[in-house]
Amino acid sequence: MFDKFNDECGVFGIFDHPEAANLTYLGLYALQHRGQESCGIVASDGVKLNRHRGIGLVADVFKNDSVFEKLPGRNAIGHVRYSTAGGTDIKNCQPILVDYHRGSIAVAHNGNLVNAPELRSDLEKRGSIFSTIADTEVIIHLLARAECETLPDRITEALKEVMGAYSLAFLTETRMVAVRDPNGFRPLVLGSLDGAYVVASESCALDLIEAEFVREIEPGEMIVVDKDGLKSYHPFEKRTATPCIFEHVYFARPDSTIFGRQVYQVRKEFGRQLAREHAVDADIVIPIPDSGVPSALGYAEESGIPFELGLIRNHYVGRTFIEPQQSIRHFGVKIKLNPIREVIAGKKVVVIDDSIVRGTTARKIIKMIRNAGASEVHVRISSPPTSYPCYYGIDTPTRNELIASSHTIEEINRYVTSDTLGYISREGLLKSTKCSMGETTFCDACFSGQYPVKFPRLNCKK
Amino acid sequence: MFDKFNDECGVFGIFDHPEAANLTYLGLYALQHRGQESCGIVASDGVKLNRHRGIGLVADVFKNDSVFEKLPGRNAIGHVRYSTAGGTDIKNCQPILVDYHRGSIAVAHNGNLVNAPELRSDLEKRGSIFSTIADTEVIIHLLARAECETLPDRITEALKEVMGAYSLAFLTETRMVAVRDPNGFRPLVLGSLDGAYVVASESCALDLIEAEFVREIEPGEMIVVDKDGLKSYHPFEKRTATPCIFEHVYFARPDSTIFGRQVYQVRKEFGRQLAREHAVDADIVIPIPDSGVPSALGYAEESGIPFELGLIRNHYVGRTFIEPQQSIRHFGVKIKLNPIREVIAGKKVVVIDDSIVRGTTARKIIKMIRNAGASEVHVRISSPPTSYPCYYGIDTPTRNELIASSHTIEEINRYVTSDTLGYISREGLLKSTKCSMGETTFCDACFSGQYPVKFPRLNCKK
Amino acid sequence: MFDKFNDECGVFGIFDHPEAANLTYLGLYALQHRGQESCGIVASDGVKLNRHRGIGLVADVFKNDSVFEKLPGRNAIGHVRYSTAGGTDIKNCQPILVDYHRGSIAVAHNGNLVNAPELRSDLEKRGSIFSTIADTEVIIHLLARAECETLPDRITEALKEVMGAYSLAFLTETRMVAVRDPNGFRPLVLGSLDGAYVVASESCALDLIEAEFVREIEPGEMIVVDKDGLKSYHPFEKRTATPCIFEHVYFARPDSTIFGRQVYQVRKEFGRQLAREHAVDADIVIPIPDSGVPSALGYAEESGIPFELGLIRNHYVGRTFIEPQQSIRHFGVKIKLNPIREVIAGKKVVVIDDSIVRGTTARKIIKMIRNAGASEVHVRISSPPTSYPCYYGIDTPTRNELIASSHTIEEINRYVTSDTLGYISREGLLKSTKCSMGETTFCDACFSGQYPVKFPRLNCKK
Amino acid sequence: MFDKFNDECGVFGIFDHPEAANLTYLGLYALQHRGQESCGIVASDGVKLNRHRGIGLVADVFKNDSVFEKLPGRNAIGHVRYSTAGGTDIKNCQPILVDYHRGSIAVAHNGNLVNAPELRSDLEKRGSIFSTIADTEVIIHLLARAECETLPDRITEALKEVMGAYSLAFLTETRMVAVRDPNGFRPLVLGSLDGAYVVASESCALDLIEAEFVREIEPGEMIVVDKDGLKSYHPFEKRTATPCIFEHVYFARPDSTIFGRQVYQVRKEFGRQLAREHAVDADIVIPIPDSGVPSALGYAEESGIPFELGLIRNHYVGRTFIEPQQSIRHFGVKIKLNPIREVIAGKKVVVIDDSIVRGTTARKIIKMIRNAGASEVHVRISSPPTSYPCYYGIDTPTRNELIASSHTIEEINRYVTSDTLGYISREGLLKSTKCSMGETTFCDACFSGQYPVKFPRLNCKK
Repeated sequence: MFDKFNDECGVFGIFDHPEAANLTYLGLYALQHRGQESCGIVASDGVKLNRHRGIGLVADVFKNDSVFEKLPGRNAIGHVRYSTAGGTDIKNCQPILVDYHRGSIAVAHNGNLVNAPELRSDLEKRGSIFSTIADTEVIIHLLARAECETLPDRITEALKEVMGAYSLAFLTETRMVAVRDPNGFRPLVLGSLDGAYVVASESCALDLIEAEFVREIEPGEMIVVDKDGLKSYHPFEKRTATPCIFEHVYFARPDSTIFGRQVYQVRKEFGRQLAREHAVDADIVIPIPDSGVPSALGYAEESGIPFELGLIRNHYVGRTFIEPQQSIRHFGVKIKLNPIREVIAGKKVVVIDDSIVRGTTARKIIKMIRNAGASEVHVRISSPPTSYPCYYGIDTPTRNELIASSHTIEEINRYVTSDTLGYISREGLLKSTKCSMGETTFCDACFSGQYPVKFPRLNCKK
Repeated sequence: MFDKFNDECGVFGIFDHPEAANLTYLGLYALQHRGQESCGIVASDGVKLNRHRGIGLVADVFKNDSVFEKLPGRNAIGHVRYSTAGGTDIKNCQPILVDYHRGSIAVAHNGNLVNAPELRSDLEKRGSIFSTIADTEVIIHLLARAECETLPDRITEALKEVMGAYSLAFLTETRMVAVRDPNGFRPLVLGSLDGAYVVASESCALDLIEAEFVREIEPGEMIVVDKDGLKSYHPFEKRTATPCIFEHVYFARPDSTIFGRQVYQVRKEFGRQLAREHAVDADIVIPIPDSGVPSALGYAEESGIPFELGLIRNHYVGRTFIEPQQSIRHFGVKIKLNPIREVIAGKKVVVIDDSIVRGTTARKIIKMIRNAGASEVHVRISSPPTSYPCYYGIDTPTRNELIASSHTIEEINRYVTSDTLGYISREGLLKSTKCSMGETTFCDACFSGQYPVKFPRLNCKK
Repeated sequence: MFDKFNDECGVFGIFDHPEAANLTYLGLYALQHRGQESCGIVASDGVKLNRHRGIGLVADVFKNDSVFEKLPGRNAIGHVRYSTAGGTDIKNCQPILVDYHRGSIAVAHNGNLVNAPELRSDLEKRGSIFSTIADTEVIIHLLARAECETLPDRITEALKEVMGAYSLAFLTETRMVAVRDPNGFRPLVLGSLDGAYVVASESCALDLIEAEFVREIEPGEMIVVDKDGLKSYHPFEKRTATPCIFEHVYFARPDSTIFGRQVYQVRKEFGRQLAREHAVDADIVIPIPDSGVPSALGYAEESGIPFELGLIRNHYVGRTFIEPQQSIRHFGVKIKLNPIREVIAGKKVVVIDDSIVRGTTARKIIKMIRNAGASEVHVRISSPPTSYPCYYGIDTPTRNELIASSHTIEEINRYVTSDTLGYISREGLLKSTKCSMGETTFCDACFSGQYPVKFPRLNCKK
Repeated sequence: MFDKFNDECGVFGIFDHPEAANLTYLGLYALQHRGQESCGIVASDGVKLNRHRGIGLVADVFKNDSVFEKLPGRNAIGHVRYSTAGGTDIKNCQPILVDYHRGSIAVAHNGNLVNAPELRSDLEKRGSIFSTIADTEVIIHLLARAECETLPDRITEALKEVMGAYSLAFLTETRMVAVRDPNGFRPLVLGSLDGAYVVASESCALDLIEAEFVREIEPGEMIVVDKDGLKSYHPFEKRTATPCIFEHVYFARPDSTIFGRQVYQVRKEFGRQLAREHAVDADIVIPIPDSGVPSALGYAEESGIPFELGLIRNHYVGRTFIEPQQSIRHFGVKIKLNPIREVIAGKKVVVIDDSIVRGTTARKIIKMIRNAGASEVHVRISSPPTSYPCYYGIDTPTRNELIASSHTIEEINRYVTSDTLGYISREGLLKSTKCSMGETTFCDACFSGQYPVKFPRLNCKK
């Protein structure tokens, strides 16, 4: 009965700026890649919280100026979300906003709690009624029942019950609170703009609003911002930080700096390392656009093989796509990518991608490249084999859908029909990050199966 | 009173295929870059024409399966459109579909007629009532009044009155007709799929539906397809063909083949030629994504300077964007592009773009690159200075908004604040196309001011 | 192929009032009973005509204040419409608004033209392209081709070609024209408000805006209003006026005064006359609400039998109604009417309605009344048997659907299962109108089959 | 802080019928007069509850067949609602549907709880988080915290905490429960259809679906229906029943039978009693349509003065109505009613209405009647002066807006400008109901100020 529902998300918050809601909109715009299904903003004018949210992209949900008139105030938080959990329902859109006996509070959450089902069941037995299926609502109910006096203490009391990944932004009538879980799975950065404090999932959101990057919020840190300024707390027991390596591999925007390193540069280094580990005699290096481009540039640079755009991406691909009814053609990949025969024909081609999940897409792309005339196709992947599902906020399928969980690399090579297949090694991957975070390591559970936070029912998704 | 209303458009048609409407949808999907404002499909079941059209992207207008149930039949044409003419109104969406005394006819049009206002005025004086502001409706009214007996003759009779650019697809209950104007300004290709004939603005639409590329429809050629197969006519007086060079510079998709040449390859050659004409001592070559990428790769290849992605594009940028109200910041460029400081800082940068229109965007991008720490910024443009407006279907501003119409290259260089600025020469541009079209030349009126088809009131937009 | 498409409609116009669009909205509100399917307003600010129209009731189509900001100007016309012609399409909503070589013109039309198909066919052969399926567009095309110099002359030139029923309101940038056909089939009244002239289908629209009733526009009269005031013309050959008796029987609102007589009073007199013609021994008189109420009051008054509301109408009945799927019940009448058993049980009941069309509804209502315990049911109809379809603007079914066209009164009595059935006589009906219109007679073609305006293809709907 | 938020509502439920959702739709259709703002249905297929609800009339919210496909199952409850509480928000639409630790439960509520604010505050202090502003949610939270084992016991446990008016329908996966508060303020009837049990606010809903009327659910009774049939409980301490007299005066549909009496007949008797108490020399009796019609018929019958429809109601009046901007006219009453001058002019008129609230509408109507030429206007009201607000589910304004709370009848007579004004006496009113309910009395707090259920903060709305 237990399902792994992952919410890929981005959060943003700003405190004490005259254009709080509008800048939050811009911040969400920059974080759109972290969630395209729904979005929302809650703003506070010091007395009352107002919300606007909806199904759709940020530019669509906030397409009328008039929306911002309904979001007055100098403080705001926002959220973008993509959910794997069943149908899309407006009531599951964040930020969650509730009235409780101490006033109003809103929360935006990036990450996944591994003990949410148990906590929810306990709370319901004690009479709590849930309005959404989101993990995040568990935090709100714990907060409503917390008995400590101050808000930071109550948030701490609530969060000490939860386990898993969370980068959170809370907003009350008069305060903004941002918290990153003790493992620091998901990124969360602090910035400042015209004296106002800003929090965001990635630094690219600071860039867009021309806010200054101050520092990353630390694993286990709680930031409280109110009229008296910013206070920092470390209310949780200290743990080894384990930020998510997959943010660098795929999820974060290449122009962001997270976990102490610039993403585009890290990805190029993945490509160079791949070239060192898996050299091959070839004519051209082509990326799967757009995620494979930095690694492909790195591979080309290190190997000396020319980089070409052999696959052109259709930039208008959205979620809906209606296939012809009667034919047996499958357009899943073709609708997104089209090979240029004149570039590929007769060539030995190195194809770079960030990961292989089920193998079906890779197989189709390789077929497409061969149909365009490639004489050889060598696939190089800028991450190790993805063998284990993520429980901390990245959307991966269940274990038995992951081709690498049950197949050797050679078997995968045969399945996807490449001439050769090379994955970057786990060591090469970590070395490439050159992470400057001191004793920090990375969570690479999706490659290693070593989950840094245990969960009550391990076998659920295998 | 006369305004230059340009409709950038794409057309598609298919005759005698069981999934006509659905394949037309796919074809429009592949042609979406030619017009994002509205789209439509008309299908014929042999007896009746049905239409669905709407404001928005193809995936949005055709997002329900049920739409296709209302478009039965083995024949269909479709259209995507972006218009510069005032507000967006569903009644201006194409294909135009009318009932007239000989039955029903639909038409989809890419291009612009230079004598449409005169023709419209004449027709109105004779009692015609227009429903739209589109040039295309002139053709329909001429057709309704044409006296020849056969459909091809009537279409010829009508088209002999019009001057300008047109790639047209007509659909009646039982026939599909495709026509390209004698100058061949806009592309139009012929394909075949499972025995059905297909026409499309660009070959990338054939690729998506896995149709075979047969040939380009020739300038001045009319193709008539009915149950007896395809017939070709050349009803117009022979002229020198002048296809639009700007399709190769910017408008067409890089994976298309038009006017006899593969677009991506042509653009790379533009970049190589630019490098030969305007070499510079620099550390990195970066494109303005995505249009500048092929030329930047060519420039890097020829010059030996490394190619880098120094500017990251936000893929979720749509048309609507609500700027902060009170601040003086202008987000026009930032919302689309973000520089990576770590790539650019301290570097001498060559920036490649396809054209400079007003100069304001280039100026902002260069400022952004300098703010990211570039020590020098050298701009290279893969087309000659754009000094004249287009009257044949590309959306360009009026002449006095075109910076190159009134400024020297050195003045532009100062305005956009580049260290050096180099445009490819007109000769270099044409040489790079290596066009295999025999006596064909190109229309480069936007660079040269030499308009191959004169129009009644020339000074209208200067 | 020829179908009788009847548009039941109401028209309104006002010239030279600062709140022209808003008062037109109110006028349409009062005329809503004449057409509930779509509505629209065109307003003129002296230079330009603007339109807003939509599918739905007046209160829904004009539910936002902002709509009126887009309808500036001191002059406006409006239209409400119910059409029997196939699907509802916004393009068929009136007023029709077109640009032609002399400027812009809008028209709102109540009535039906009997030679519209022939005129349309002729116009199309001469190259006209129609945008709608409305009769009214024929008038517009004739107008676009008219050669006279002045607007009144051109309108006359156009209208001399058409045959049938029309009460028309035209609006140009600077003039309002109202015309009633020579037979005067449909009502059209003239009023004044604060010095502005008003035209409306019924006087109840004048009442609502507190305009003064001036007079009825005469059959064959054309009124032209511009900055110089009102001019009256009689451009057509004089004919015997034949206003529609069914307006008094059913269609007009009971609080209106049309064709020189107050409708509620006329209907009460119908009831009194019915009592004189078809007396019966009974306990109570009940109306089919709401249309039968005045006649039932008259019948009760004349007969001395008490009036009761034995059937209660659900005021929220709209067009859509979804019936249970699996059951065989038919809710068509029950959803609108519910009998009160306590009023009816054990009683001899006289039931009054205005007409019987197919007989199916009457049959269901009588069954419902018997199920509620009535011991006898005597049906009295305040019009003669409806044996012929209307071609002049009232929605009636084809002849073979009219039960009275092929059945005697005794047969109808048996079919609807009444104990006795009595229709008012044709003489009684006409006498009851006590019409003060001089030599005027009424069109009662629906009862008599004597059509005052012949039409090209008579047998079309029989 | 405390506001009197009244929800006027209707409820419906059916258990074990193959067309449960569809019949619920019909039931709500018949109960539409009890609430026009929003509506909803929850259906159970034995395993899962599904809901559809929306803002708008029943026919609009359920206008597509496809809605019913999403409401499978043999059990359903529904709700129509009009709320006085601020803006309309979908989240406040009923039925409320929640998941809690024992499964899912839905509830539809007619009535108002007088201690809801206190209960809500207590629950929130104990950690409950509310999603709506509805009283009804208090019941749900009490239920979630109830500790009894069986559902009937838990509902009883919860309802013992609440005070006020409630007719409730609950639905779980496998049971339907209906409860009427011990005072029996609001009606609730029991019916049966093809072996299925039905509950509804009024008997007119049974009539429409052709269900048999079984009996009224008694004050303080709880009905539980499941696969084993129907069980009846009386879990509350016995109190004197005090059904709402205003249901008979105004709120219920005239074709319903509630509290043991047929509404239309009761209203006619109110009219006869009025005639006996307040005779006057007059020419005609006219009702304010539609609510005044039965009483006016009774008055006419008793007095012998002829009944006439002197005011015609516009049946298309909805909620939205946009008044002219610049003028000082007020259209509030005119938009609904239009007098017929020919009926009224020169007459001494008795006008019958059900109640006078603020007096402003009565004043406007009387002015309108005088403008139509009435020589005398005698107002007769079929209820005593409304001096006190209702706290049990009828929408009345605050006490100081009720004209009768601070003015004598003579003062009201002068304010509304009638010649004479007569209200039925409290004794006459009660006598007219001839209620067969044994020891039952009526709640007439709105006339007498004697509130049968006290509330914590009495002076809130005075």
